[in-house]
Amino acid sequence: MTYCLAMRLDEGLIFLSDTRTNAGVDNIGTYRKLHVRQPAPDRLFVIQSAGNLGTTQQVLDLLDRDLSSGAAESLATVGHVFEAALYIGRLSQQTAVQHRDALRTVGADGTASFIVGGQIAGQPPDIYLVYPEGNYIRASDDLPFLQIGETKYGKFFLELAVRAEVDIVTAGKIALSSMISTAHANLSVGPPYDAAFYRTDSLALTELRIEPDSPYVAEIQSVWQRHLLEAIHHLPAVSAEALADGSI
Amino acid sequence: MTYCLAMRLDEGLIFLSDTRTNAGVDNIGTYRKLHVRQPAPDRLFVIQSAGNLGTTQQVLDLLDRDLSSGAAESLATVGHVFEAALYIGRLSQQTAVQHRDALRTVGADGTASFIVGGQIAGQPPDIYLVYPEGNYIRASDDLPFLQIGETKYGKFFLELAVRAEVDIVTAGKIALSSMISTAHANLSVGPPYDAAFYRTDSLALTELRIEPDSPYVAEIQSVWQRHLLEAIHHLPAVSAEALADGSI
Repeated sequence: MTYCLAMRLDEGLIFLSDTRTNAGVDNIGTYRKLHVRQPAPDRLFVIQSAGNLGTTQQVLDLLDRDLSSGAAESLATVGHVFEAALYIGRLSQQTAVQHRDALRTVGADGTASFIVGGQIAGQPPDIYLVYPEGNYIRASDDLPFLQIGETKYGKFFLELAVRAEVDIVTAGKIALSSMISTAHANLSVGPPYDAAFYRTDSLALTELRIEPDSPYVAEIQSVWQRHLLEAIHHLPAVSAEALADGSI
Repeated sequence: MTYCLAMRLDEGLIFLSDTRTNAGVDNIGTYRKLHVRQPAPDRLFVIQSAGNLGTTQQVLDLLDRDLSSGAAESLATVGHVFEAALYIGRLSQQTAVQHRDALRTVGADGTASFIVGGQIAGQPPDIYLVYPEGNYIRASDDLPFLQIGETKYGKFFLELAVRAEVDIVTAGKIALSSMISTAHANLSVGPPYDAAFYRTDSLALTELRIEPDSPYVAEIQSVWQRHLLEAIHHLPAVSAEALADGSI
């Protein structure tokens, strides 16, 4: 499994991915799932991947081949970030179809999902979730985040706290909290984590690898634990009257 | 969908279930999923159900028929709570098999899962998760809770806070927090909620229905929101040095 998330804030974009891959519980690996491409100074793309590892690697190889061969359609030629999403979606869908029959004979699924984000100069930055079928959706204005992979465990934090006006530093904390609670619940999601911070119109990315034994992660976990246990302590109890009534 | 959870504490047992059922998003209903049977003063059972509504209703009807007909095997005759779990599992598995071929023609799944808990006098109380195949597992000693239905969204709270030594009042707050965060994330889980509190060796149950418009639920939500947002505020930020290094 995998967990990747991205946020679209007024200040910019945030991307966070785990690195764990698995083919069964006895075959665990570590692979980057957050990839950066800047084919020209006027454009920057971040690509996060979930699903079949073979498909995601082939899609990245095809992307790079199209870039180096000067293909008519590539990350260097698309005019909008949404066109990059469609282009990646087409490569992904074609790759999955290429291997579908062979994978089906062993009961495997060759599909992949992507989050594609970034900016092309003169246009606003944005993030897109690209489905295995090649189509995409943009993050909503009300809850401006996207997730792929194991999305359920860490959704609560995002829904509660991610709004466009949240500053990028706070949003980074929320993202990591969502990641840590997912990794806590699902062994197939795990560190190290790759984070990328993009400030609107900078056309430059700050990348950060968060190591498994990081004291920073330990501190985040401990602050969460302390506050959640304290919150439970402050929750109201059911009154004796309500218990006697059988209804509240 | 459905969300039911149960806890086994030193003080006793807690059960909490939602009531929402759905056959597609345009067919939403409200059904009890927490059922109590006390066929004799020396024994008390709580049965929570998830999965096919037809199957869960038929299982309960069969249970009651076996009780009223004085069958050789019934909730009145089993010698241990684990035998009640096996008995319910057998009824569930047989009911699913009875309807399997017909349901398969319309692509429907007739299976159900149950949580069976309670006490028979002279033995310790316990809770069991009964799989559609009829076998069961007991809650672990380290994390003494069980869930059925939509289990992922609300697991974080339980893993963090549910320990055998937690008092029953606090555990009730944790259970409701887990339920509320699940209902928040998944429209197919929703109020009213049915709760049941069982104190060890009491052989009597306190039941509580928590209504959708309950000020109690609103207060729990608001306390959570306040504390979580405050916790985010207290989380450490990534240092400028770590960002410059690209690693933390």
